[in-house]
Amino acid sequence: MMTARQYEESLRKLKLEVYLFGRRVNNVVDDPVIRPSMKAVAQTYELAHHPEYEEIITARSHLTGAKINRFTHIHQGIDDLVMKSKMGRLLGRETGCCFQRCVGMDALNALSIVTYDIDRKTGSDYYQRFLKYLAYVQEKDLVCDGAMTDTKGDRSLPPRQQPDPDQYLHIIEKNDKGIVVRGAKAHQTGAVNSHEIIVMPTIAMRAEDTDYTVSFALPSDASGIIYIMGRQSCDTRKLEGGTLDMGNVLYGGHETLVVFDDVFVPWERVFMCGESEFAGQLVELFAAYHRQSYACKVGVGDVLIGAAQLAAEYNGVAGASHIKDKIVEMNHLNETLYCGCLACALEGQREPSGTYAVNTLLANVHKQNVTRFPYEISRLAQDIAGGLMVTLPSEKDLEAPATKKWVEKYFKTRSDVPTEHRMRILRLIENLTLGTAAVGYLTESMHGAGSPQAQRIMISRRVNMALKKKSARKLCGIAEDHNGNE
Amino acid sequence: MMTARQYEESLRKLKLEVYLFGRRVNNVVDDPVIRPSMKAVAQTYELAHHPEYEEIITARSHLTGAKINRFTHIHQGIDDLVMKSKMGRLLGRETGCCFQRCVGMDALNALSIVTYDIDRKTGSDYYQRFLKYLAYVQEKDLVCDGAMTDTKGDRSLPPRQQPDPDQYLHIIEKNDKGIVVRGAKAHQTGAVNSHEIIVMPTIAMRAEDTDYTVSFALPSDASGIIYIMGRQSCDTRKLEGGTLDMGNVLYGGHETLVVFDDVFVPWERVFMCGESEFAGQLVELFAAYHRQSYACKVGVGDVLIGAAQLAAEYNGVAGASHIKDKIVEMNHLNETLYCGCLACALEGQREPSGTYAVNTLLANVHKQNVTRFPYEISRLAQDIAGGLMVTLPSEKDLEAPATKKWVEKYFKTRSDVPTEHRMRILRLIENLTLGTAAVGYLTESMHGAGSPQAQRIMISRRVNMALKKKSARKLCGIAEDHNGNE
Amino acid sequence: MMTARQYEESLRKLKLEVYLFGRRVNNVVDDPVIRPSMKAVAQTYELAHHPEYEEIITARSHLTGAKINRFTHIHQGIDDLVMKSKMGRLLGRETGCCFQRCVGMDALNALSIVTYDIDRKTGSDYYQRFLKYLAYVQEKDLVCDGAMTDTKGDRSLPPRQQPDPDQYLHIIEKNDKGIVVRGAKAHQTGAVNSHEIIVMPTIAMRAEDTDYTVSFALPSDASGIIYIMGRQSCDTRKLEGGTLDMGNVLYGGHETLVVFDDVFVPWERVFMCGESEFAGQLVELFAAYHRQSYACKVGVGDVLIGAAQLAAEYNGVAGASHIKDKIVEMNHLNETLYCGCLACALEGQREPSGTYAVNTLLANVHKQNVTRFPYEISRLAQDIAGGLMVTLPSEKDLEAPATKKWVEKYFKTRSDVPTEHRMRILRLIENLTLGTAAVGYLTESMHGAGSPQAQRIMISRRVNMALKKKSARKLCGIAEDHNGNE
Amino acid sequence: MMTARQYEESLRKLKLEVYLFGRRVNNVVDDPVIRPSMKAVAQTYELAHHPEYEEIITARSHLTGAKINRFTHIHQGIDDLVMKSKMGRLLGRETGCCFQRCVGMDALNALSIVTYDIDRKTGSDYYQRFLKYLAYVQEKDLVCDGAMTDTKGDRSLPPRQQPDPDQYLHIIEKNDKGIVVRGAKAHQTGAVNSHEIIVMPTIAMRAEDTDYTVSFALPSDASGIIYIMGRQSCDTRKLEGGTLDMGNVLYGGHETLVVFDDVFVPWERVFMCGESEFAGQLVELFAAYHRQSYACKVGVGDVLIGAAQLAAEYNGVAGASHIKDKIVEMNHLNETLYCGCLACALEGQREPSGTYAVNTLLANVHKQNVTRFPYEISRLAQDIAGGLMVTLPSEKDLEAPATKKWVEKYFKTRSDVPTEHRMRILRLIENLTLGTAAVGYLTESMHGAGSPQAQRIMISRRVNMALKKKSARKLCGIAEDHNGNE
Repeated sequence: MMTARQYEESLRKLKLEVYLFGRRVNNVVDDPVIRPSMKAVAQTYELAHHPEYEEIITARSHLTGAKINRFTHIHQGIDDLVMKSKMGRLLGRETGCCFQRCVGMDALNALSIVTYDIDRKTGSDYYQRFLKYLAYVQEKDLVCDGAMTDTKGDRSLPPRQQPDPDQYLHIIEKNDKGIVVRGAKAHQTGAVNSHEIIVMPTIAMRAEDTDYTVSFALPSDASGIIYIMGRQSCDTRKLEGGTLDMGNVLYGGHETLVVFDDVFVPWERVFMCGESEFAGQLVELFAAYHRQSYACKVGVGDVLIGAAQLAAEYNGVAGASHIKDKIVEMNHLNETLYCGCLACALEGQREPSGTYAVNTLLANVHKQNVTRFPYEISRLAQDIAGGLMVTLPSEKDLEAPATKKWVEKYFKTRSDVPTEHRMRILRLIENLTLGTAAVGYLTESMHGAGSPQAQRIMISRRVNMALKKKSARKLCGIAEDHNGNE
Repeated sequence: MMTARQYEESLRKLKLEVYLFGRRVNNVVDDPVIRPSMKAVAQTYELAHHPEYEEIITARSHLTGAKINRFTHIHQGIDDLVMKSKMGRLLGRETGCCFQRCVGMDALNALSIVTYDIDRKTGSDYYQRFLKYLAYVQEKDLVCDGAMTDTKGDRSLPPRQQPDPDQYLHIIEKNDKGIVVRGAKAHQTGAVNSHEIIVMPTIAMRAEDTDYTVSFALPSDASGIIYIMGRQSCDTRKLEGGTLDMGNVLYGGHETLVVFDDVFVPWERVFMCGESEFAGQLVELFAAYHRQSYACKVGVGDVLIGAAQLAAEYNGVAGASHIKDKIVEMNHLNETLYCGCLACALEGQREPSGTYAVNTLLANVHKQNVTRFPYEISRLAQDIAGGLMVTLPSEKDLEAPATKKWVEKYFKTRSDVPTEHRMRILRLIENLTLGTAAVGYLTESMHGAGSPQAQRIMISRRVNMALKKKSARKLCGIAEDHNGNE
Repeated sequence: MMTARQYEESLRKLKLEVYLFGRRVNNVVDDPVIRPSMKAVAQTYELAHHPEYEEIITARSHLTGAKINRFTHIHQGIDDLVMKSKMGRLLGRETGCCFQRCVGMDALNALSIVTYDIDRKTGSDYYQRFLKYLAYVQEKDLVCDGAMTDTKGDRSLPPRQQPDPDQYLHIIEKNDKGIVVRGAKAHQTGAVNSHEIIVMPTIAMRAEDTDYTVSFALPSDASGIIYIMGRQSCDTRKLEGGTLDMGNVLYGGHETLVVFDDVFVPWERVFMCGESEFAGQLVELFAAYHRQSYACKVGVGDVLIGAAQLAAEYNGVAGASHIKDKIVEMNHLNETLYCGCLACALEGQREPSGTYAVNTLLANVHKQNVTRFPYEISRLAQDIAGGLMVTLPSEKDLEAPATKKWVEKYFKTRSDVPTEHRMRILRLIENLTLGTAAVGYLTESMHGAGSPQAQRIMISRRVNMALKKKSARKLCGIAEDHNGNE
Repeated sequence: MMTARQYEESLRKLKLEVYLFGRRVNNVVDDPVIRPSMKAVAQTYELAHHPEYEEIITARSHLTGAKINRFTHIHQGIDDLVMKSKMGRLLGRETGCCFQRCVGMDALNALSIVTYDIDRKTGSDYYQRFLKYLAYVQEKDLVCDGAMTDTKGDRSLPPRQQPDPDQYLHIIEKNDKGIVVRGAKAHQTGAVNSHEIIVMPTIAMRAEDTDYTVSFALPSDASGIIYIMGRQSCDTRKLEGGTLDMGNVLYGGHETLVVFDDVFVPWERVFMCGESEFAGQLVELFAAYHRQSYACKVGVGDVLIGAAQLAAEYNGVAGASHIKDKIVEMNHLNETLYCGCLACALEGQREPSGTYAVNTLLANVHKQNVTRFPYEISRLAQDIAGGLMVTLPSEKDLEAPATKKWVEKYFKTRSDVPTEHRMRILRLIENLTLGTAAVGYLTESMHGAGSPQAQRIMISRRVNMALKKKSARKLCGIAEDHNGNE
């Protein structure tokens, strides 16, 4: 397993084509806007070496028996699924943001099931290709970006009918060495901190959509891959030279548009190529795993609850009954989320390949709550923080001689709390509810791993309504229903 | 293990002093108001003999290795805790009401931990007494009422300062054969369907409250025990001679006031007697177990969701997008509850006695949601059912010649759905949201196993705020807090 | 204006054909199940004679200038609309239930607009017929039932395609004296306490549905009209001989199925007959007025809040911060409802006939909130009441010698509060949240004046989305939209 | 009345001492961070000259009969109060942000009541001073900052016991010409766009707090007044040279800390000076008026709803039933807010001075909803907008040759919608839910005019609980309560 430092050095070797604010970024690792997100990923390496987290963040490879980072592991039992949820909460709490590495883990696990199933049905050898790739990822301890979301163009049209056929990534050429693909993947979390990109289709495909049914993996700096960074609320505070106004002074996240400008993929890196009847399964499995991954927001919630409590203490109002009740409510909602990510793990089951999948119904239920509760937790945090959170002068006003005395004097509360501490904690709450981290804690909680309506559709598909109706009929004395069912 | 029939017969042998509507009930088992609740308990016997439910409803006694009903089992691992939650949902779905037997199971498990701990501290022999009693309960396959809630009198005063000292059950005499107790336990679920009553204190006690610190078990027909039945919304529909208007034509629940009019308890049945420093532990453990037991409401929710779906189908509107969305929401809330009762089991831990306890924090979080979501599920069920649910003529109007033709004609919807079926399903929804079952599904969900505020207090005690605050401080750059903590 | 006593006597003269529990009711006025609902209507007469309520409950007829009961008044200005909302709250608070008389007022006002508009378009003389009828109603101070909701049969089919053509009330014969109608109106609030029935179509009609487009008024005891009473949760408690267990010892409501078994209507009582293009307008106007009428639930909410506060005081917990906060929340929700019924009145406008209509958008917004907040207020009331609300023994247990002492003793709280008072207030909360009054406060709040989805459709029709989009475009710098709109 | 241009020019004449990002701002009017907020205030002048808004934004001075801007008007009747709410919504919709001018209007109206009442009680001449000042404000058409919120220091201590006595603004000197004050007012909305500052105490004062009981008005550039600008989420996007990424390309808001560094106030500008028993009244009146002023958020909600609808249309999903339902919900919540600000106006009453005050209970109910619904409307807007709202590349990426083609291509949806339009509308939603406008629409909605708990306290004080309890008692048959009250 790499150390955090080795991880950072490994990234320096990549030749990525990255754009930010309309300009090419030459040194991605040290770019002040991007670096905090790299540091967040690095924590997935760092903590793996801490003995107290060993059980959570490391695992034994089922391929080699070697100790590996859990982010590269294929789940071999319910315990692995449970540990994954705990790992998410832990890292969310440690970084206070999106640490970006779960998406690759989810892609690997989904592919471990689907490549096996395709082979069983068609006699192909995708599973062996996949295992070879997996062994490489595990040995090198790599970060993989799991790239699913196409840009989709006109949402009322299927891939093949789009005015621009590239709105869904597709194969434009096949030859004996491999395939050439074109298209783009949007909202790619942590893409420029990744060694690898694993591409998957974004929706269930129809038979005529074979060119759009493609899954493969590539080094992130493969020729023709272009990264355009998304901007975040308050992103440029990282360029201002201080730390206080950043809120989270250590970590962040990022998302990018990843363009595949006619990119070659060798056959050994292709894991699905035209098997359109399996596209839906891959999407559902990846989505279910990734909806579980929103366990991380419980950890971010821990940070926000801690910050709100400190704000109340610094303001001198922590003992007020309404403040205490709001803290209870924040915790209640946060722990309700925790129950969801644990339960979908507990109710997981073994797939034919031996991989354990989470319970799809409960994973969707969990994610649906994630689209709601962080917003309410944020609202309560803003309630507790007080309006100063959005009217506070800047860090520079705390430093400049003309303003420093007034800022120090008039934002002082309890005599034992430095004004600067109060400012720092308020800026952290701003960061989590309006700033760069709100992108992850709120909007990504809404749309990441699928928008709320996607979960509702899955919930409606996976509940056993026939059983519920039968119970109801029996209890009210309807012997047989109108369709003759008992 | 007894069969349902044997259970019913065993109850006939009890000589209970029961009052209902101001009159003594001579034949409790066949009383039409009480009988549906006995039938619900009987399902805990009946299903134990069904092979498909064996894993859920039976267990191996850790005392004898014999196969026993899980309701008499002491949890020996996480799996037992998980199975308990699944058993609750199953029986809730089968009966559509409170099946009453969990409270004794929770009392037994809590006592298995606390009697052991008292002995370790004080050298007493409660645990051996308890094990002997447990062996008896397991062997005879008995229903135990777990009696905790005292009547409490003036809530602003502790037990010893009450104007009426009997508002908390207490010891009024001790002798070499045993003790004599006086007081009452309120809201006793399923009491008159029980073979045994297990009494526990209702709050943490202070040193001066030793007389109030008492736990014991007695046969339910011990001399001096008096049962006064609580009445429920729509209870007398069971006396009308039909079935349709009952809604749930098979099952029900009941609660009683249990008066201890100077009742003698032999020493071998006394499990706590004055050890006031352990009262709080017993209360918290029983409460946590019993908050998990609200898993049953997920099963009742299954029935209500099934009923709402049938109502929509019978009304011919099941395809409307807003109806489908409401069904999704009902399921989403119901499965969120399910996540809670699974998660508190999964995160359980072993106590010194070997018994596994649920995770207290998550059990309280689960129960807190139970005080909310069933109300919203009910509201949505009423939305889907339509107003007819509360304006429907009576069963007798469906039968009487003068009205039958109009009722048949004008409440007809789809040609393939008998009007009677529509009436039955609407009456079931009425039963669950306003009638006898609403007592269990709503108000008992609110107050059973402790009112919402009790859970909020436990949540505030059990979350690790220090860890959350430390994470927040670290991320915003506060090296050391105002108290010098890192 | 009649007195309450005169009103009661006037009802005795009616020869209604009423069925309840499958039997013909010979003396409707004194039937113990029905009588409380008559008493509630009687309050609309009683309070009209109290000087302090004169401004609210009486008005000046715009026909004669005479002082009349507001329930027979045609709104002549914004002030009338505002007073209507205040009257609703007042009577809701006085009766704690549905007082049934608003529906006729709403029908009269809607017809005053639509008959005028039909005449203007077609040269008919409906408006004069209507004014003559109105003068009669005002002079005699009558209660009118406003009957809109047809039984609807298969909801996926329009009236003309129903397998049973009578599922929508329709004209089966026209002659020179009048028309003959057949069908039924469901959920008719207060029907058997009414002197008159005013029938209206239930949906917008198409040109081919002329036979279904009919509005008229008849004496409630016209030949061929049959009333089948709906049953309510806990209705038979009124037959038990006591009062305590009724909860509300004075008042109630009722709903009936009203069958029109080939009933003759003379032409002077016909207000619409085939003008299908006006059916939608009549439905929308009546619905908007009637959605405003849910002002009454604010008054019922006042009672429930008062009861919850008393329960807390009787329990000795009124000073707990969480109790106080729940009372605030109940009040907050209740007053938010009040804002809605006031605002839709304030924003009303004059129609061509001179009648003032409420603002349709805001009336629908108000009613939509009524489908939600009473449920939450009820949940909070149950929280505050405590579980005893549903486990309390019966009134007879308080009286019977064998149980009286135990009930008195063990349900005693504060020494200055009689146990009976505590029982009464808990029974009132039960009545409002589970019993007969819950039918009105909850389920009728959901479905009365149209189910929630009906309001959502109206909201979506009445908001000015074009204006909102234009504002958004302007602010983000989109000079012209994709359709070329500025 | 000034024009917008005259207003801007009038500001150029002020010599304000303003700091931003630690530096003195020499040209406040043209500072790119501040200017959008000035432009928002300018709209209150601009629209006053549009004939279609004349009724809403202008009024007749009760002093002179002249046509004046309503923001300088003293409410002379219910109609004025209602128009104020409509003006708030209108300007919120026009600017999409806080237009800052209501706070001065609310201060003037509150003072018009309290100065009159003080004079009546004490024989002082504050009211005449105030009227003279008011005439000046009306004639010159000035913007007044209403400054109430002190910095408060340690919230557990009253003013006089603060370690730093300046945490509440106070009088440090009185002489025959006037007084000298020291302290600071926090969160001052629009302060540097104001001609005048009107200072009021922030809490009810005790007799010993006379030095803290002070109200006065000063020109905003009076000697010793220092402004330190608060920073907002995304504030520096205004410095980037483009417009797209600003979201709202026209308008904004600002808040400042206003320091009074020993500032002299002449007696004719002093409106309260030590009359501590009136401080609470002034606070409550100003708070009630200002809580009504949150009518503006309804207008901002209009913008956000329009933006969400456009985003759905641009994404090609506006026809999906779940999208339509979310738009309905947003409108429903927004119009519920509108009902609140109308109702508190409708129920206003005349004060002794002739000024009309809003209904305090309903104003607090309204504001309490403002602390909730905008958060839910924002959540729904983010749901509809899609994740692209937070992963979109920057405006510069749309312009730079290397990225322009990819951004144009891959964020294209419907062929008739320019990619830039889609980006603009998403940036507007970002602005309103995470960016500079979120400060106003969310956090200021929470805390402006008092935090939620302040409203709850007022609600609990202003509801008539005695009446509610009496109604409940009567209905359940409790003739007399435990205190002997009927």
